[in-house]
Amino acid sequence: MAELLRVQGYGATGVKQVAAAAQAPIGSIYHHFPGGKREIAAAVLRTTGAAYIQLVPLLLDPYDDLVAGVGAFFEAAADDMENTGWANMCPVGTVTGEVADSEPGIRAVAAEVIGSWVDDASAYLVGRGVADPDARAVVFAMLGSLEGAFILSRGLRSSEPLRAAGRAMAAYVATVPQGAPARS
Amino acid sequence: MAELLRVQGYGATGVKQVAAAAQAPIGSIYHHFPGGKREIAAAVLRTTGAAYIQLVPLLLDPYDDLVAGVGAFFEAAADDMENTGWANMCPVGTVTGEVADSEPGIRAVAAEVIGSWVDDASAYLVGRGVADPDARAVVFAMLGSLEGAFILSRGLRSSEPLRAAGRAMAAYVATVPQGAPARS
Repeated sequence: MAELLRVQGYGATGVKQVAAAAQAPIGSIYHHFPGGKREIAAAVLRTTGAAYIQLVPLLLDPYDDLVAGVGAFFEAAADDMENTGWANMCPVGTVTGEVADSEPGIRAVAAEVIGSWVDDASAYLVGRGVADPDARAVVFAMLGSLEGAFILSRGLRSSEPLRAAGRAMAAYVATVPQGAPARS
Repeated sequence: MAELLRVQGYGATGVKQVAAAAQAPIGSIYHHFPGGKREIAAAVLRTTGAAYIQLVPLLLDPYDDLVAGVGAFFEAAADDMENTGWANMCPVGTVTGEVADSEPGIRAVAAEVIGSWVDDASAYLVGRGVADPDARAVVFAMLGSLEGAFILSRGLRSSEPLRAAGRAMAAYVATVPQGAPARS
């Protein structure tokens, strides 16, 4: 269902389609996910969320200069979008935007995923020498900027919004006090 | 349909619901919008888009200091979200995120709306003394940051993402060269 959520969203996706995509009988889907579409979507958001947060150290560790790392993070996302023909980089963001007011259970799962991203990424930034609560504010600003730029870039079929977001976030992070990294 | 798109997105909304919400016979809906759901959604995005762009001068004109205005813009949005119980502030953003890969006609309309926002807001910033291409980059960064923070704030039921986005954008805009305002 991950690919269906990514491409067409929650409302347009049915369990029949999920079964067809998984090449599984629909009864088997309901056996594993008695809650049907809602339960499958929740599982997808949790799995996707756990995978995505690993990108933070992966993309930022190579940069001793955090500001350069932040800029490169957005540039990498912009390159990825161009190279994939404007793929939806974050179904967690788009599904949250779609169902936050109509599917309270899925909204709660999205909140859990986003909350864990913020906790993990803030801890990472603290390890890079950004003090709390600045670290948490930086994470919220970067995550929001990234999610919004994904939507604009997909809508416009242009990486300009993502690249502008990266330059803005780098300029902002450069204004945030940063001590010596805690990591060895 | 604007309210349905705002609350439950494009995929979950049907013409029957639109007719019921408008207290109109479904035949009358199809008479005015022979293209059905797609055509209605396109009209909603265009109308919403034209209304929203008027908020830029309305919210920024009172501030001689553009940096203070940018911060206040996001604070006003955060207050609005809290006061409305986390209403979806921008169906253009959420519908774009939902259908950019599955509804090419609606994506094209969204691109037209977003493009006109960027043109109009960039011209406004040029009038405030921000030179192009900086003005366009600032608009992309602010719009992306706003759209993403809307989603995070709705998902988390918290204004923290929007307020963090506002502080980040103010810090970024403070780094952008700004000449004397062109307006009288």
